[in-house]
Amino acid sequence: MKIKDVFTKSLIFLILFMTTMVVDGQNLDALALSYAKDSFDELYEFFSLPNDANDPSEIEPNVKWCERAFKQRGFNTKRLETETVPLLLASRSFPNANKTVLVYLQVDGQPVDSTKWFQPNPYIPVLKTQNAQGNWDIIPWSHLQGDINPDWRIFSRSASDARGPDMMFLKAMDILNDLDVQPNFNIKVIMDFEEELGSPQLPNAVKAYKEELKADMLVIFDGPRHLSNAPTLVYGARGIATISLEVFGPRVPLHSGNYGNYAPNPAMKLSQLLSGMWFDDGRVAIPRWYDGIIISDEVKSVLKQVPDDEPQIQKNFGIASTDNIGSNFQEAMQYPALGILGLKAAWVGNERRTIIPATAIAELNIRLVKETDGEHMVKLVKDYIQDQGYYLVDHEPTEEERMSHNKIARFNAKVSYGAYRTDFDTEIGAWLRRGMYSAFGHEPIQIRTGGGSIPISPFVITLGIPAVAVPTVNPDNNQHSPNENIRLGNYIDGIKTITAILMEKL
Amino acid sequence: MKIKDVFTKSLIFLILFMTTMVVDGQNLDALALSYAKDSFDELYEFFSLPNDANDPSEIEPNVKWCERAFKQRGFNTKRLETETVPLLLASRSFPNANKTVLVYLQVDGQPVDSTKWFQPNPYIPVLKTQNAQGNWDIIPWSHLQGDINPDWRIFSRSASDARGPDMMFLKAMDILNDLDVQPNFNIKVIMDFEEELGSPQLPNAVKAYKEELKADMLVIFDGPRHLSNAPTLVYGARGIATISLEVFGPRVPLHSGNYGNYAPNPAMKLSQLLSGMWFDDGRVAIPRWYDGIIISDEVKSVLKQVPDDEPQIQKNFGIASTDNIGSNFQEAMQYPALGILGLKAAWVGNERRTIIPATAIAELNIRLVKETDGEHMVKLVKDYIQDQGYYLVDHEPTEEERMSHNKIARFNAKVSYGAYRTDFDTEIGAWLRRGMYSAFGHEPIQIRTGGGSIPISPFVITLGIPAVAVPTVNPDNNQHSPNENIRLGNYIDGIKTITAILMEKL
Repeated sequence: MKIKDVFTKSLIFLILFMTTMVVDGQNLDALALSYAKDSFDELYEFFSLPNDANDPSEIEPNVKWCERAFKQRGFNTKRLETETVPLLLASRSFPNANKTVLVYLQVDGQPVDSTKWFQPNPYIPVLKTQNAQGNWDIIPWSHLQGDINPDWRIFSRSASDARGPDMMFLKAMDILNDLDVQPNFNIKVIMDFEEELGSPQLPNAVKAYKEELKADMLVIFDGPRHLSNAPTLVYGARGIATISLEVFGPRVPLHSGNYGNYAPNPAMKLSQLLSGMWFDDGRVAIPRWYDGIIISDEVKSVLKQVPDDEPQIQKNFGIASTDNIGSNFQEAMQYPALGILGLKAAWVGNERRTIIPATAIAELNIRLVKETDGEHMVKLVKDYIQDQGYYLVDHEPTEEERMSHNKIARFNAKVSYGAYRTDFDTEIGAWLRRGMYSAFGHEPIQIRTGGGSIPISPFVITLGIPAVAVPTVNPDNNQHSPNENIRLGNYIDGIKTITAILMEKL
Repeated sequence: MKIKDVFTKSLIFLILFMTTMVVDGQNLDALALSYAKDSFDELYEFFSLPNDANDPSEIEPNVKWCERAFKQRGFNTKRLETETVPLLLASRSFPNANKTVLVYLQVDGQPVDSTKWFQPNPYIPVLKTQNAQGNWDIIPWSHLQGDINPDWRIFSRSASDARGPDMMFLKAMDILNDLDVQPNFNIKVIMDFEEELGSPQLPNAVKAYKEELKADMLVIFDGPRHLSNAPTLVYGARGIATISLEVFGPRVPLHSGNYGNYAPNPAMKLSQLLSGMWFDDGRVAIPRWYDGIIISDEVKSVLKQVPDDEPQIQKNFGIASTDNIGSNFQEAMQYPALGILGLKAAWVGNERRTIIPATAIAELNIRLVKETDGEHMVKLVKDYIQDQGYYLVDHEPTEEERMSHNKIARFNAKVSYGAYRTDFDTEIGAWLRRGMYSAFGHEPIQIRTGGGSIPISPFVITLGIPAVAVPTVNPDNNQHSPNENIRLGNYIDGIKTITAILMEKL
C-alpha cells in the first residue's frame, strides 16, 4: 500500500468515525472525492487502452484489464464467448442476498479521427480547464492530486461513453469493500465490448448464456444525465437499426465536362431519393412511419415534468429551430427517428475533382421506440425506395443489372436491437429512487425514454426482467464526437451515486 | 548522340530518300513511330514530375523542364508572372512567316488518390497491356524499344491530360527541325500550369501580356478525340463555373440517438435543397436555366454528322439511360449543365458514426455554353437557393446568424471562364482540315462544342482571335480519374497529326 493510499484510507475512516459510522449523503461526498483521487492512476491506465471494436485486436487488452480489475474487487469472472470478441461476466454473491441485480457496463468506444482532437492522442487522457475565452487548455495531470475543481475535465475517447462509469462502479465497489458493506442482493456485471458496433453478438449471447445471466432486474450505468446535469433515472431507451444506401452512376467517375448533361449523376439521384423521406420540418414522410404511437395526456404530463430548458439547448447547439416532432424535447424522443449519419460522393474541398461521381453513399439510422419493430421500420424505408422506382441490390450491380435498370441502389440494413421501457412504478424504480434520494436528498429527474440506444432489450426480452439506467456523466461530454470528456464533478458524483445505490437495501 | 539516336535518324533519312523526300501520310507514319520511340526516355522524365497545382511547389520543376525542352527546340522562353505560378511563353519565328499561330498546352494535372491506382505511384509511368480478362498488366518499360503494339498504354497522371500532347508537340518540332521544314507562320506556345484549378490567373494574364501573346489564331492541342477514336477537330468548348455549398446544422456533430427528431440534420436539408435543382430526368429545374439556347435545324444536322455510337457509349459507362437533354449526345453538349462533383457529411462505411452531422457539403459545377454568361448562371443558382428560404453566407455563420435563421448555407462561387465557339468556315478551320487530310487521307470528325472546358475564352475575347482544338488522345483515357493512361497508337498518331499541321502552309 502506497503512502498516499494509507493517507486516503485513514482519512476515510476518520470521517466515518467522526460521523459515528453513518454513511449519509454528506459523508458520501467526502468518500467519493477521496476514492476518485485514489482512482486516477488506474483510470489513466484504463483510458489509455485503444478500444475501437472495428479492430478486434484492440479489445483483448480491455477484456484482460477488466478481468483483473473485477477479480481485485472479489468478483469471479467468466468470458462469454461469441463469434467475435467475448462478453465478460463478473459475479459476486453476498450472504444475505435473496435477489440478483444485473449491471450492464460498456467498455468499447467510438472510432477516433485524431486530426479533430485538440490533444496529442485521443487515447492518452489529458486534464483540461476552461479559459476565459471558453476554450479548453491542458493542465498537468498531477493537479488531480491537489485541490480538484469539479469543472475540470478529463478528455479522452470513452471518458464518458462509457469507461468513466466503469471506473465509478469499480470505485464504488472499493468503498463497499473497505467499509465492509454487504448488499442484500447478489451482483452480476455484464461487460459489452461491441456496444458502438451495435452489439451484434449480444442478442444471441443473452439467449446462449441465459442461465449465467439470470437476475431479477438490470441496472445500466451508462449515458449522460439530463441536460440540467441534475441526478437522473432513465426508464427506457430507443433501439437502433442502420441502413447503408449507395446509388450507382457510371461504372467509373467521368469527366464532368465531357459527359455532364449526358451521364446521370448518382449524387443528384441520391439527393432526390433522400429528399422525399422527410417533410421540410424534419418529420418523416415515409408512409405509416408513426403508426401505433399514441402519447396520452397522462404521459404528456409526465414528460412535461422533466425540466428541459429548450431555448438553452438550442443555443448550445447553435440551432434556431428544431425538428417538428412532438411538442417538446421529451415528446420527440417517444417517436421513431430516421436520420442521415453521413454522405459521400467523390471528393469535396481541396480534393474536389471535376467529375460525375460513380456512386453516392448515404448512411442512415433508425431510432426505434417500444411500439415500432425494427424489421418493420426497415421494410418501410425499403418499400419507399422501391416505390421511387429503385432496383435494390445488396452487392455491386452486375453488367446486366446496370444495363436493365435506370435506378439501382445497394441497400444493406441491420436491426441491432429494439427499444425497451420500464414503468416508473416498479420495484427497481423504487429501489433506485431511494438510492438517489439518500445520495442527493431529493428525487431524481425521471426520463421515460432516452433518445440514445443501449443494447438492453435483449436482456429485457430474453431474461424477462425490468431495466432502468442510471446515467451519471455530463451531457456536454462530446459523446461520439472528437474531444469527448468527463467533468470531474460528474465523475465524483457518479461514484457517490453508485455507492449509494449499492448500499441501498433492495 | 546515342547509338540508338544515330540509328533512328539514319532510318528516317533513308525513308525520306527512298520516297524522294516527299512527306505524305505514309511517310509521316514511319516518322511519327520513329520519333515516338525516340521520345520515351524524355517522356518518362517529364511524366514523373508531380504536377498538382494545388501544391504550387510541385509546379516549378515543371516550368523549368518546359523551359529547357523548348529552348532545345530553338524557342525563346519567357515566364509570364502572375500572382501564383507563372505561365510560360515559348516563341519561335520563321523567315517566310506573315502570320502567327498561338498554341495552347496544359502542363499541370488533376490531384491523385494513390490508393485507387493499380500501380506503385501515379507519377511513375508504367507500360501496360490488356489481358484476356480485360485487365491491364504492367509490362517492362524496355518493351517500348522493340515492336510496339499500338494498343499498349502508358499509365500515369496527366499521360493524356495533357502531358502526352505536350510531348507530341515537342516531337513534332523535332521532326520539323531534323527535316529543316520551315512553317510559313511564326509559333508562340503558351503553357498553362493551373488548368486543373480552372486557370484562375489566366484571364488577367492574357490582358496583362496581350502584346506578347498577339497572334492570328489559337490552336489547342488538348482533349480526347471523338469516342470513335477517329481524327477530330473541336471548334468550341463549354466554360466552367464552380460552386461550393455547405449547409449548417448543429455547431458540432450530435449523438444521433440523443437528439434525433430534435436537432435538424444538415444532410437532410442539403438533400432537399439539391433535389429541387433537377427534374427526375436530369434536366435542370432552376428557372430560366436554358434561356437563350436555340438549336436550329441546320445546327442539328451538323451535330448529327458526328458518328456517335450511343448504345456503345452507354454500355461503356454501364448506364441504362442518359439524362434527357437534347435529342442526342452532341446536342446535350450545346446546353449548360449543372452537376454535383462531390458530397460529404460526416463519415460513411467503416468510419460511420451514429451522429447528426454538423455540416453537409456539396461541390457543384456549371458547364457554360456560348449563350450563357457565367456570372448570370451562378446567380440563377444562388437565387434558387435563396428562394428556398436559405440565408447565405460566405463564411462560418456567427452565433447571431445561427440563432436567427433556420436555413443557413455557405455559398462560394467562382466563374473560371466562359465558353468559346469558332465557325467551321474560317481560315483556321480550313488550315487544320487540310493538315488533317494530309495526315489521314480523309476529313476529320468536326465537333461544334466539346463538353469539357479549356481556358480558351480569355484568348478569344481579349486577343480577338478564333480558336480550334486538335484533340489527339484516346477517349477512354480515364482523364480526371485514377488510372489515367494514353494509348500508344494515339500518342504516335498525335505526333503525326501535329507534324502534318505544322508542315501545312497557312
